[in-house]
Parts: sequence; structure tokens; C-alpha cells
Amino acid sequence: MTGNPASDRPSLVSRLLDDAHRAHEELRPHVRETALHASSSVGRERGARVLFKLESLQVTGSFKFRGALNKMLAVPPRERSRGVVTASTGNHGAAVAHAAELLEAPARVFVPESAADSKLLRIRRAGAEITAVAGDPLEAELAASEYARENDLVYVPPYNDPAVVAGQATVGLEIARQSVSAGGPDAVFVPVGGGGLAAGVAAAVKSAWPEARVIGCSPENSPAMIRAVEAGHVVDVRGLPTLSDGTAGGIEQGTITLDLCRSLVDEFLLVSELHIARCMRTLLLAEMLMVEGAAAVGLAGYEAVADRYDASATIVVVLSGANVSRQTLLTVLSDDAVTS
Amino acid sequence: MTGNPASDRPSLVSRLLDDAHRAHEELRPHVRETALHASSSVGRERGARVLFKLESLQVTGSFKFRGALNKMLAVPPRERSRGVVTASTGNHGAAVAHAAELLEAPARVFVPESAADSKLLRIRRAGAEITAVAGDPLEAELAASEYARENDLVYVPPYNDPAVVAGQATVGLEIARQSVSAGGPDAVFVPVGGGGLAAGVAAAVKSAWPEARVIGCSPENSPAMIRAVEAGHVVDVRGLPTLSDGTAGGIEQGTITLDLCRSLVDEFLLVSELHIARCMRTLLLAEMLMVEGAAAVGLAGYEAVADRYDASATIVVVLSGANVSRQTLLTVLSDDAVTS
Repeated sequence: MTGNPASDRPSLVSRLLDDAHRAHEELRPHVRETALHASSSVGRERGARVLFKLESLQVTGSFKFRGALNKMLAVPPRERSRGVVTASTGNHGAAVAHAAELLEAPARVFVPESAADSKLLRIRRAGAEITAVAGDPLEAELAASEYARENDLVYVPPYNDPAVVAGQATVGLEIARQSVSAGGPDAVFVPVGGGGLAAGVAAAVKSAWPEARVIGCSPENSPAMIRAVEAGHVVDVRGLPTLSDGTAGGIEQGTITLDLCRSLVDEFLLVSELHIARCMRTLLLAEMLMVEGAAAVGLAGYEAVADRYDASATIVVVLSGANVSRQTLLTVLSDDAVTS
Repeated sequence: MTGNPASDRPSLVSRLLDDAHRAHEELRPHVRETALHASSSVGRERGARVLFKLESLQVTGSFKFRGALNKMLAVPPRERSRGVVTASTGNHGAAVAHAAELLEAPARVFVPESAADSKLLRIRRAGAEITAVAGDPLEAELAASEYARENDLVYVPPYNDPAVVAGQATVGLEIARQSVSAGGPDAVFVPVGGGGLAAGVAAAVKSAWPEARVIGCSPENSPAMIRAVEAGHVVDVRGLPTLSDGTAGGIEQGTITLDLCRSLVDEFLLVSELHIARCMRTLLLAEMLMVEGAAAVGLAGYEAVADRYDASATIVVVLSGANVSRQTLLTVLSDDAVTS
């Protein structure tokens, strides 16, 4: 990106909004308008109205389906019919595989050799080819983009792409409309990994409700975007394991989501693993909602600053996905540390 | 009930349908229209379209809220403002407590002395008074109805009441409308305890889609309604413990749901505890839906007869609730028997 980021921002954001409205129409037949679901216990004590945006019930079990499908719809059918390529063992991989199946495009997903077979089930079930690559996830990403370039196939990035961010922004368009009766949200808490969801949601919510604050939340153990925002550029951050595997990992140099997050996200919060585990448990047992770790990150962020909001406030917490392993569920439900 | 049941049936059913349509209007501001959610893995192999009716996401976490609220709305406000009474430690108790809170009526819930405190949390949180009674659940029920009679309060029965059944029937009205694009359901699988949900859903679905088969499913360990239908009258059935606590227990002599189930439910299926556990696990891990045992009973019923349905079939499985304890989740997720 060249030029002064400050002067680029307005056009960047207004283009994103145009794209998001177009995506909203085009995705409609395939994507679920997920419920904005009133909490039954969270926020009850202080009287705040906490609403969960249930992307955990989205097709493929996460918001990632919106961005992946929107990217594929944005390329000419002839082009995508030759094939789409990505690298991911998680929600993005499943989303690309499922979107490709829907559009009858062949899909190839690159994964690290070390990836557990159980994680690849959803990708395989959707009919995608899997290519295992030696080394870490970055090696798989490099191999995927190289393969796409060499074979003239469509590469579907997980966040660093205008069409992907516009797809995720449709979550925000829905929130904006679904919260009309409450006069719009006072605050929206959204998990941040590569920043596609946070940037998209912030742009869409604020275009309808300029007073709404959008608060990005990441695990202390994997704060790549927050560190990049602080530094003004992507920095090398050593990540530790986190329950929020959906937001884990480094971010790409030059990603378009950095400037978007800097200008649109009002505040960033870091949350501990213990707090993520407790919030998962609250969501599972008290709210009766199946969620993955990333979905609990937004709730942990809200809880950390809940005393800011009084009884008249409307809070939205984006529950980004529900793809959680049996082992993680067992750990979160049985870990004594969580109850203490 | 006097007279020939066969000749009473048409008027019984048509009155239920009238009541259900009225309930649908009156409940609308308070009750969620829950999604009819396409399965992501169940039925995929044989190509059948399996749709889950997510009453697991209903207010208070189960369909019981519909019937309890409808009953309370059916009595004059002056009368219910004196107070409502019921007996239940489970979903019905939480539903009555929450509906009473909404209507600003005092509520008293009778429970067996032996009830675990954690089970009563939801009832207490809604502001209901709890009265503990020595002995088994039947003693608590008798004490509750006696207390209501003596104090001239509204007793809210869990299933043996026309307004309660009409409230549950609104689940069926929603299914009928939500499945229009699929040409209506070929079969609807619904868990059966006292029979209120099954009778209501059957009446409502069949009034719109007369060809739809409604199949009632109960645990082998607690088959009270099925045995009553076979015998033509309520019989004493010794129940064993079941994962499906939501459908467990005996049924009341003379319950109106018996004749309704006999005439409206096409078939009854019994399912094993092992099968219920496996289906819970499928719903939790493959479908990413939080459910209680009762919700898995309908899926187990479908799986038992899945080979009847070809790729063009539309199957609805009612997921009745999501109130599951931490201990039950741990058992179901970790039990080696389930995986085998």
C-alpha cells in the first residue's frame, strides 16, 4: 500500500461498505441470517441487555463461510470452475471447502503434515482435496499461494482480501438491523485474529450507528493484531497456545485489515486463558450455547469492562464459531481451575 | 372423560387447533420463533434433508416455556396476579418461573426435598418461591395442586391441560410454515414424555401437511405414554434412570394427551440409553448444537428407521431443549461405550 494511510481510510471504508451491501444481497440465498439472541444469565445482575450474535450457528459452524463464499462469488464463474485453493485446517478451510462444493468448483486445501486427521474431516467431507506440507502452517500457506499462482487457480485468503472482509462485514449489517428496536448497540465485542471480522463488523455497525463502540478482543497468548495496531505495522509476535485457536497465529505483512482495524476499532482488550475458559463454560452451561474458544473471547472482553455499562445499555457479543473438539470441551468442563 | 373417545376426537383436535392458532398470536411477543436448522452431517450420506427444530434455543432453553406462558395468558390477569403454582425441578419449573416473572405474577414451585440445589438455580433466579416436599416427585405434585386449590391460585400442569398443549402446538405451526419451501415434512420425529409436545406438534403439522407422519420417540427406560397408548389407558410403568430426564416419569390418569397421542401420532419408537448418548454426542460435536438428553431421543428415533427415507425426503427432528448438567455432558463426551 502506498500513500498516506490517513487519507486512504475514508475511501477504503466506503469501498468496504459498498462491497458489504453487495455481498449481503449475493450471500442471502446461501448464508444464514443468524439470530441476535438475548442472554439468559450474562449481564442480568447489572440489568444490561446482552445480545449474542450466533455465528456459531452459521453454515460450517463459523462466520468464515461468509467471507470465503463472497470471495468465490466475486471471481468469474469460469475462473473459479478451474479450482480454488487455500491453506487452513480450521474454520476457514471448512468454509472454503463447503463454499466450493456449493458452487461446484474443485477445491484444494493445504495443511501442515502434523494436522490431526479429525480436524480434516469437515474439509474432506465437503469433497475438497487435501495436500499435506512439511513444516508449520506458514509453509502450508506459502505452498498454497504458490500452487494457485502456478496453476492459475483462485487463492482464497483467510482475511487479507477486500471480498473476504466484505463477506464478514455482513455480520455487522445484520447486527445493525437486528438491534433497531433497541436503538442500536452501545458496544459490540468481537474476537480479533487476522482482523477481517472485526474490521467488517466495525465498518457495518458504525455506518448505521455511529455512536456504537466496537471493541476488539484477543487472547493474551496470541495478540498479533493488537501489537500491530500499537506499533503501526505488523510485528513479529511469539504466540503461545490458546483455547481460542480460531484467532491464533501471526498476521500477514501489509494486510489490509490493519489499517481498517486501526481506524474503525475503538479499543482493544486482551483476555487470559483462564478467563476464556470460564466464559466458554458460562456459554455452554448457563447460556446453553455450543461455542469454540474464539467465541468466548468476546464475552471475556465484555466481562472485563462490564462495570462501564448501566441497565439501559445494549451490548452485542459476537459468538464467532462453534467448532470445538471433544478434548477441549472435556478440558473446559472438567478443569477445576475454571470453577475456582 | 365420558362418552366414546372415537367420536370425541375430531372436536378435541379441532379445538386444539383453534387454541393453537390463538396461542401463536398471543405468544408472539414473548416466545422465539426458533430456527428450522439444516443438519450438517446427519442424513448426509443417504442424501435425506434433515432439519432440526431448535427449541433448544427457546426462552428458558426448552419448548416448555410456550405451554406454561400460554396457560398463564389464558387465565384472567386478576386471577394470575394472586399467584401461580407448579411442581417441577426441570424445564417446566423454569418455564413457569420465567413466565410468571414476565407477567409479574408471584410463583411458587414445589420440588422434592432431594432435588439438587444446582437444578433449582434457574427457578430461583426468576424470582419464584421454592417449597421443598418430603418424598418423591409425585408427593411434590400432589402438594402443589392441593396448595393451589386451598389458596385459590392458578395451578400450571406440565402437560395435562388444553392451554399447555395448545402452547406446545405452536412448535408445530412454525414447523408447518418453515417447511413450505420443502413441500412440507415427510416425517417429524418428536420426543414423548407426558405427550403435550407430541400431541400439539402432530395436530399442527398434520393440519397443514396431512401426509406428514409424526413419530413419537421415548427412552426404553421410561416408556409411560407408549405403554398407555398400547393398553388404551394409563398403566403403571416402572421407569429406570435415563439420559432423557426431560421425558422421564409416569403420566397422569385421565390425561387429555393420551387420546390426542393415540389419534394423532402415527407411530411410536423406543430408543436405548446407548443410542441416546451417541446421538447427544453427534448433536454436540458434529452438529455443534447444545442439547439435553431428551433432544437426542428424536434423533435416535430417526436414525433407527433412517433407511425408510430416500434422498428426496424432508425429515424434521424436534430438539426439545438444551438444559444439560455439566456432569451429564462430561459423561456423554467421555464415555468409551459411546464411541465403540
